[in-house]
Amino acid sequence: MPSYKAPLRDIKFLMTELLDAPAELAKMPYYAANEVADADLLSQVLDEAARFVETELVPLNRVGDQEGCVRHDDSEVTTPTGFKAAYKKYTQAGWSALDADPNYGGQGMPHLISNVLVEMMNSANVAWAMYPGLSHGAYSALHAVGSDELKNLYLPKIVSGEWTGTMCLTEPHAGTDLGIIRTKASDNGDGTYSVTGTKIFISAGEHDMAENIVHLVLARLDGSPEGTKGISLFLVPKYIPGDDGRLGERNGVVCGSIEHKMGINGNATAVLNFDGAKGWLVGEINKGMNHMFIMMNAARLGTGLQGLGLGEVAYQNALAYAKDRTQMRHEPRVNPGEQADPILVHPDVRRMLLTGKAYSEAGRAMAMWLALSLDTEHHHPDEAKRKEAADLVALLTPIAKAFMTDNGFNVAVQSQQVFGGHGYIQEWGMEQFVRDARIGQIYEGTNGIQSLDLLGRKVLMDGGKKLQKLAGTLQEFAEEHEGDEHIGDYVTQLGKAAQQLGSLTMVIGQKAMQEGGADEVNAAAVDYLRFFGHVVYGYLWARMAKIAHDKVDAGQDKDGFYLSKVQTARFYFAKLFPETKALAATIKAGNETLAVDDRAVFGWEQLVTA
Amino acid sequence: MPSYKAPLRDIKFLMTELLDAPAELAKMPYYAANEVADADLLSQVLDEAARFVETELVPLNRVGDQEGCVRHDDSEVTTPTGFKAAYKKYTQAGWSALDADPNYGGQGMPHLISNVLVEMMNSANVAWAMYPGLSHGAYSALHAVGSDELKNLYLPKIVSGEWTGTMCLTEPHAGTDLGIIRTKASDNGDGTYSVTGTKIFISAGEHDMAENIVHLVLARLDGSPEGTKGISLFLVPKYIPGDDGRLGERNGVVCGSIEHKMGINGNATAVLNFDGAKGWLVGEINKGMNHMFIMMNAARLGTGLQGLGLGEVAYQNALAYAKDRTQMRHEPRVNPGEQADPILVHPDVRRMLLTGKAYSEAGRAMAMWLALSLDTEHHHPDEAKRKEAADLVALLTPIAKAFMTDNGFNVAVQSQQVFGGHGYIQEWGMEQFVRDARIGQIYEGTNGIQSLDLLGRKVLMDGGKKLQKLAGTLQEFAEEHEGDEHIGDYVTQLGKAAQQLGSLTMVIGQKAMQEGGADEVNAAAVDYLRFFGHVVYGYLWARMAKIAHDKVDAGQDKDGFYLSKVQTARFYFAKLFPETKALAATIKAGNETLAVDDRAVFGWEQLVTA
Repeated sequence: MPSYKAPLRDIKFLMTELLDAPAELAKMPYYAANEVADADLLSQVLDEAARFVETELVPLNRVGDQEGCVRHDDSEVTTPTGFKAAYKKYTQAGWSALDADPNYGGQGMPHLISNVLVEMMNSANVAWAMYPGLSHGAYSALHAVGSDELKNLYLPKIVSGEWTGTMCLTEPHAGTDLGIIRTKASDNGDGTYSVTGTKIFISAGEHDMAENIVHLVLARLDGSPEGTKGISLFLVPKYIPGDDGRLGERNGVVCGSIEHKMGINGNATAVLNFDGAKGWLVGEINKGMNHMFIMMNAARLGTGLQGLGLGEVAYQNALAYAKDRTQMRHEPRVNPGEQADPILVHPDVRRMLLTGKAYSEAGRAMAMWLALSLDTEHHHPDEAKRKEAADLVALLTPIAKAFMTDNGFNVAVQSQQVFGGHGYIQEWGMEQFVRDARIGQIYEGTNGIQSLDLLGRKVLMDGGKKLQKLAGTLQEFAEEHEGDEHIGDYVTQLGKAAQQLGSLTMVIGQKAMQEGGADEVNAAAVDYLRFFGHVVYGYLWARMAKIAHDKVDAGQDKDGFYLSKVQTARFYFAKLFPETKALAATIKAGNETLAVDDRAVFGWEQLVTA
Repeated sequence: MPSYKAPLRDIKFLMTELLDAPAELAKMPYYAANEVADADLLSQVLDEAARFVETELVPLNRVGDQEGCVRHDDSEVTTPTGFKAAYKKYTQAGWSALDADPNYGGQGMPHLISNVLVEMMNSANVAWAMYPGLSHGAYSALHAVGSDELKNLYLPKIVSGEWTGTMCLTEPHAGTDLGIIRTKASDNGDGTYSVTGTKIFISAGEHDMAENIVHLVLARLDGSPEGTKGISLFLVPKYIPGDDGRLGERNGVVCGSIEHKMGINGNATAVLNFDGAKGWLVGEINKGMNHMFIMMNAARLGTGLQGLGLGEVAYQNALAYAKDRTQMRHEPRVNPGEQADPILVHPDVRRMLLTGKAYSEAGRAMAMWLALSLDTEHHHPDEAKRKEAADLVALLTPIAKAFMTDNGFNVAVQSQQVFGGHGYIQEWGMEQFVRDARIGQIYEGTNGIQSLDLLGRKVLMDGGKKLQKLAGTLQEFAEEHEGDEHIGDYVTQLGKAAQQLGSLTMVIGQKAMQEGGADEVNAAAVDYLRFFGHVVYGYLWARMAKIAHDKVDAGQDKDGFYLSKVQTARFYFAKLFPETKALAATIKAGNETLAVDDRAVFGWEQLVTA
């Protein structure tokens, strides 16, 4: 059975040494007032989070996969053995309230910390972690745009974890294309609405872990315009609460079935049938898509953290196996008296492991940087800082979602490979990581959609301003350390790549504006996001390497942690970063070779062009 | 439910236009004598093979995955519903005898044709296809090195399909490292041996599809030396036949359990306990590893064909879905009166599909070239031609295994991605392709081991002679078509890459011979194989493009088939071949960044070096 130890040493390094987070947080009155901007306190919370996750969630991961969820004839759903009890402990220990607003019972901790908790939970048990994860998304949207009445009634229950939340977007015919949803809402004239329609793929959509479920549902109000501009967001509870929060009658939303999936079997993926269910408007009429994006952005980072968490745990187990499993001999021998040496001696095994380590550590650095930027965006007293942080969050969110889930999946696959045939057998648990990791690339907007969001919306829509700001930061860093004896070579590569990112962006932008160039953004987007991801990871590895080299040089590397950073950075630039060379070529190749003859190549008679 | 149509048009193009196979086969007296070197006959056989596969095997693919195999208390194993009946039809139609020796009831058809049948079966139902696949491996080894007595008794039954075969290599502590196996054989003094030990991961190891199972077992004969030089190959039947082939007593080999796996659930992966089981020596004492490689080489190509077949079927279904599923709008509109257009209009969807198409068609070309080379190796009257073919087979076999299974898995993953969330749901069948494809990268020697075989054994061991021969062929082709209006650009890229392959090989070889350079081959091997694979695919795409352009230019492209080839080749060189740029860099980076400090980086106290 796989094991997991939260990478606390690395997390604390990032928090204090890379990000200087306690000092940054102390500048924000919100955190200062909540008395949470203290390095020791933050560190203690992380220790406790690790203990909870390792003790309560890790042991339930395999049982969740094997048992899955069961829907009964009365449309109720039972979660796997132990899930409900662990959730009770989670809420009782206050984890559901961790970064929530103290006005609604929250602890007011920074995103930086809840981000780490989510990473850990995803390593331990991603299917379980999705239940509180969805609640968090619902909390965010409701907190941001809900009326005081709704907030006062629902938020304390969600924060305490007594009730959980969902995001109801997808319909059978409408996934990416939410503008064509058919779920309808009619005004009841009493401040409530009747919601009718079918939603599919609703994670945590029905379960027995909490007494009530708060569905946030996209629907079209009668008389609203077509498309995304006619969509509103409604709150539809499973049980309708009284003003005192006590559960009242059962609402008209039932689970029609649950899906049988490739993975994340411990999470109930529900078909929800809304039949005149009573709902309340959240935010403004016809602004549902904007409001939903509050949830989606949180969910996108959360999904990225699934990739990170699953990559990390897969790496940890592959490393343990590589130390234990002996096969073939290496000179010099490790086990001179025995038949074979641990497979960790073989360079190709080390390559697979270092890939996992390098992607996990860079991903963690990016995620924590992003989380701290969220804190800054929301709570920094300086408006310019808030704006700067918001821009960075906008850029990094699609990268966090897509780059981390792609890397996480690939790392899970390579870590499984380290096990040879045993990796394919269920009892070792490695194949579950692969199956569980696969969904992250698909949901919350496929990674193709993330790429379009990055290139089309975040980069090109403002004429590259946000990109230039970030590229400027990187190039400044590169210039500052040009010729550095340790990281000089890295910053040279980084500076070139950052420059190339700018020129590639220009090339795409120009092509896109030409006659017939409308497809150029779509054609380049996926490769562009991967290129961009490497530039960000390269920047973070160079920064981490700089800190680590200084420590090593100063003789302050007692446990080898900094040497590990130094050598992993070196590996990253030698073996992973060069992917940018191929990506630059495929980005430049553009749409030309994709614009094939549909009839000849795809046997498609329904032609796009004559 | 997924569908599958055998790509007969492409197969026949490759057979007649790329490979000119009927004419080549006609030069070989063996095929001429068997009267099978006829284009029309070969084409008919392929049509019938496609009909059998599409009708009988496709419908059993999902049921095989869902039901899996069941082991009963008496150690017998039941295969999924329909598997046994389909196998009976398969044998009755003579498919098990297709390329077998007429002396033992075979039809004497070329490998070229059985290769295609295997590809089709793997597309349709890889778990099912493994039962006859394993028999074929056992047939090959027995046919090559078995005594006449064993051959006369066993081969007719294996050829007819009445009995199936297995390869028993792996033990709990010995996978890649077969030199340390513990299964023992003792000479009974009567021409038989007693075999005792435990073998694991035995595909098709126990089942109800045939009346007898012929296990080919690696074991160490009492008194044999340690390591791979002391291993012999034994034939151990489940039931011991009399001289007349009638089944006699049950032998001392039982299925201890079957594995629960990530995929290929329809195939029983058995733990086999040999307890003084009666066996017969196959070939020479202590030459078991050599004899086993006869099976392994066949199995490696067969495994590569799993990657090819699964990539092909995943691509076909993704393409069908992309035509059917409407989501978002594209200018110009395809469905002007409707809400959304088929997703095939989106360039990124086309990129994913073209990736599947380009890898599948190049893989098929390589596999058929390799299969025809096997025919040449075994049956060409000219010894020089046989030698040349054998060298090519030696080089291409590890590439066929590793490059095709890696690409097949990646194509299955990308094809699943085309389905969005539906790809993650079991009923669509796409996730099964991903799970089934994953094993191909692992078994029959992991892809890391294939890479070492290619670089260490096939390329460097003879000082690069086989490589030079192939590279010479490629460069000749490149020079011949330099400046060609259609493929001039491709051959320029190809020529450079072929040259680079040579120089990279030299760099690795030189590093490896230096003091402390023993790990350089292992460090570079995986990236080297991928680079080599692209060079081979690039060569084949350039050749296919040349043929296709000529047809298009001559106005002979009635159905658009040749235009499809032309445009897929263009895509391949623009979007997939550039991976070589990254690989060249990572190959050059060598072992340096993998030779990290074990204690610091991996927390490994059991140090390799002081």
